[in-house]
Formats: sequence, structure tokens, C-alpha cells
Amino acid sequence: MSNEGRFIDNLRAIALHPAARGLADDAAVLEVGGEALVLTHDMLVEGVHVLPDQDPADIAWKLVATNLSDLAAKGAEPLGVLLGHMLGRDDDRFAHGLVEVLGRYGVPLLGGDTVSGGPPRSWGLTAIGRATHRPVPSRSGAGLGDGVWVTGAVGAAMLGFEAVRDGSGSDASAYLRPQPRLAEGVQLAPLVTAIMDVSDGLLLDAFRLAEASSATVAIDSAAVPIAAPEQRRWDALRWGDDYELLFTLPADQAPQIPATRIGMVEPQSFVPLFVDGQPIANAQGLGYQHG
Amino acid sequence: MSNEGRFIDNLRAIALHPAARGLADDAAVLEVGGEALVLTHDMLVEGVHVLPDQDPADIAWKLVATNLSDLAAKGAEPLGVLLGHMLGRDDDRFAHGLVEVLGRYGVPLLGGDTVSGGPPRSWGLTAIGRATHRPVPSRSGAGLGDGVWVTGAVGAAMLGFEAVRDGSGSDASAYLRPQPRLAEGVQLAPLVTAIMDVSDGLLLDAFRLAEASSATVAIDSAAVPIAAPEQRRWDALRWGDDYELLFTLPADQAPQIPATRIGMVEPQSFVPLFVDGQPIANAQGLGYQHG
Repeated sequence: MSNEGRFIDNLRAIALHPAARGLADDAAVLEVGGEALVLTHDMLVEGVHVLPDQDPADIAWKLVATNLSDLAAKGAEPLGVLLGHMLGRDDDRFAHGLVEVLGRYGVPLLGGDTVSGGPPRSWGLTAIGRATHRPVPSRSGAGLGDGVWVTGAVGAAMLGFEAVRDGSGSDASAYLRPQPRLAEGVQLAPLVTAIMDVSDGLLLDAFRLAEASSATVAIDSAAVPIAAPEQRRWDALRWGDDYELLFTLPADQAPQIPATRIGMVEPQSFVPLFVDGQPIANAQGLGYQHG
Repeated sequence: MSNEGRFIDNLRAIALHPAARGLADDAAVLEVGGEALVLTHDMLVEGVHVLPDQDPADIAWKLVATNLSDLAAKGAEPLGVLLGHMLGRDDDRFAHGLVEVLGRYGVPLLGGDTVSGGPPRSWGLTAIGRATHRPVPSRSGAGLGDGVWVTGAVGAAMLGFEAVRDGSGSDASAYLRPQPRLAEGVQLAPLVTAIMDVSDGLLLDAFRLAEASSATVAIDSAAVPIAAPEQRRWDALRWGDDYELLFTLPADQAPQIPATRIGMVEPQSFVPLFVDGQPIANAQGLGYQHG
């Protein structure tokens, strides 16, 4: 079991804390004053989630964008963010990227904290949004016979990562500056039976969606749009950081936004996931398990 | 100028970002669905805010309690928290303290993130609350002639810190497990002209309240209740971590909770703060400037 799994099990064992799963799963939904608020918090750590010598402007962008992607998967419109920032060299670049990404998505910086510390430095970001559709969709509603869909293509972030790592000079923006699918999430929220963002790899996240829905998902790997050479298809399906939306719709429905049908929901089987008819019994090696 | 000040100035310079001050000041207030939400985020860093070998259960307690104290200073009742947790040894102790403090104040863990990383480890916590009184009080409303008040006594956390540092075995609970004044904050919110929690030292926080209110505060140091020997009075007034509430009331009013009048608000002078008639021109050395 992972350290994360152990930590969450500790929380559960001590008090059966009802929200302990919240640490690993969906963004939180909080009902306040007739609105459903959506809350998410992610941390980035130097050397774990961030490459050495990465431009702090890109770190700030990704920190915000990944949290906004969690809001997108709930069909929420962002209301603001709170930042936990560990001060360091190049703080002007971090501030620059922060202002860029907040401006791009029209999100105010509500508050936060600045601390000294590190190396390694770490950052935390909380995003808060307002759900545009009730009930708020989750990853757990996929039903028998539903179609499985994905927005965009996967694999672009993988190529971007490799460009940065190898210093090849190729376009790395998909990796460095992901673009959360906020508008698509709002459009999809009233239609989907289940939805999540693809942060850790399409196959791993499909596995998780199936588990959360107590269903079995069958993926046709050839149907998945990839933004990489064909011989990298399998890598692209397992690489994370693309921040597309993975969702299920009743069999007779299609989304009103560009998306591709990549599989269907089958009766619950002995495994959560089939890929090209092959059963996948556990998530090991299926995607990128963030530290 | 501090690194924090530079970072915030960077945010301002780049885009005159309206909420850049939020990083250093009051908890954020967000109007949603007819309610005023109060949001706060604090980080703790090993070696900066946390003593070596400190029980992780106490770290978890303090992380939650200090954020709840920010809610208390807004008269807000907590709705939940999100945790950014860096995994490490003794995670069972951290989980234990987390469940203790959340249970004590009846606050759910809504979600968050777990990451690997460190040393030094760091933690972030976001607390969200619902304001019980509108307008939501802030530190900026102190008016001429108001009385200046404080709940409880200051200096207990200082003695607790020294007990831990020196291994004396004396009671260190005031330092390790501060108790946010949530009930008092709710009672005070409709009455106060300004309010904040005393996290960084009574004199420093009084200086900040005066600056935020564009006023001058005069403190009578002998009137301040201290939980330390009389010869440590000056230390107690400058030590932080007590998490009492500092507030101002119109001159003819007294609070309905136990509190002590320690000064008054004077016409704005050439300095924000007088202590026993002595002008204090800047905050240097006045309290504990958290890293």
C-alpha cells in the first residue's frame, strides 16, 4: 500500500473519519446558502512535481491550472484561489506566472500565506468554485451501457515533458502550461453520468472512474485521440498531465462539444477495466502515480 | 523590505492585482449565495514554524487551530478544512492529532492532497467558514475614542515554547495546542469596530490593527493580562502564538465575554502605536515576524 493509502487508512482507523477519502478523490462539494461550492487543494514539491530549474512562472501557472481542472470536472466556475507560497529566488517570475494564469481565467487571488523554507520548496493552492449544475457530477455515476468519452487528445504533455527534459527546444507548453477545460466542464455537467479530469493518465483515471462507479469500463485503445506519434500510443495512454475531461454519457447521447467516444461501460466484472478486451486487475503501472 | 513584502509588491507591480494584499492581511471574505464565506490558508514548515522532533499530532493540531483562529477573528463558524500533507514518518501521529482537533471543534475534513517530499516537510491548511454577522468585521475599523480590548492573557505560549525547548517538563499545551476563540469571535462580531487574532505578538498585532485602521493605538502595558512572571511582561507582550482576540469597541461599551481593556484609539499621529506614552515608529522588534 502506498504511504498515501496508509495515511488515509490511519485517519479512518482512528475515527472512521467520514471525509478521509476526500484526500484522494474528487474535489469536495459544500452546500452553503443554496449554492454548491466546489473546493480543491493541490501541493507541488520541487524535485517531485517540478523539474529542476523550471521557470517559476510555469510552476505558478501549473499550480493554478491543475486546481482549476478539478473545478472543471465538477462543472464549477472558479470564484477564487488561496496560495501557500514558499519564498525563494525568482519570486518575480512566480508572481508573473501567477498573475498571467489568474488573468487568463478571470480568477481572483483571495488570500493565502507566504513562508520561508526549503529546499525543496513547496507550494499549495486551494481553488474554490460555484457549481453551475445540481446535482454536482462526480466520478461515481457511470451506468451500464454508457458511452465513455474524452475531450481533446492525450500525449501532448508527455512530449512537452520530454522536450523540457532533453532541452530539444520543441514546444513544451502542453506540459508547462496546461489549459483546464472549464467551459467544457460547464457544458458537460448537466449531461454526464460520471466525469473526472485526466491528471494521472487516461487508463489509470478510467480505472479509477470505473472503481468509483462500481462498474467495468472497456476502452478501445485505438479510438483514443493521441497527440503523439502512433508508436508512442501506449505511452500516451499512460502518461498524465493532459488535463482533458474523461466522462460517461447515456448510450444514445453525444456531447455538444468536441470529444471522442473511446469505450463503454459494461456490467461489473472481476476487474474494473478492460483495454482492447484484456482485463486490467490493478492500477500498478497503468499511469502516473503522483508522489 | 522582507521577502514577503517584495513578493506581494511584485504581484502588485505586474498587474496591480487587487487581492495581492490578501496574502498578508485578514482572512478573505467571499460573498456567495447570500452568505459571506471566510477563507484562510496557512503553511507550516519544519525547522521554521515547527520544532525538531515535535510530535506530529501537535503539528496537526496547531495547523488547524491557527486557521480556525483566523475564522474566529471574523466571527465565522467553521464549515470545513482542506489539508495539504507531506507524507513522512509518524503519519499515524499526525492523523491522530488531526482527528482530535477536527473533532474538538466539530469541523469536517473536506479534502486536500498528500505528497511526498522534504525534508523539510511542509503542510498547508485551508479553512472555510460562514460569517455569523454582516458586515464581517475586519482589523480596519477602529475609530477615535474606541477602547482597545484583549481576551484572556498573553505569554502562556511563550512559556510553553520554552518548556519544550528546554525539556523542562512544564505544561506546554498553550504553545503546542492553542485553542481558537471561536465562540468569543461569534459573540464579538456584532459589537466590535475592529478585531484580529494575536498570532505574532500583542504589540505587533496592535501596530498592524492601528495601521489598517489609519489610527493610532495607545496601549497601557501594565493593563495587559499576562500568563507569565511579571519580570517577563515585556517578552509576553512581544511573543506570539497566544491566539487571543484583540479588538476595539466604542468607548461606552464593554464586551459580554471575559476580556480586558488595555488601551484606547487616539487621533492618527505620526506613529501607529504608543506603548505607555512612548511612540513606536516601526514594527521591527515589536513581535514575532513569522518566516
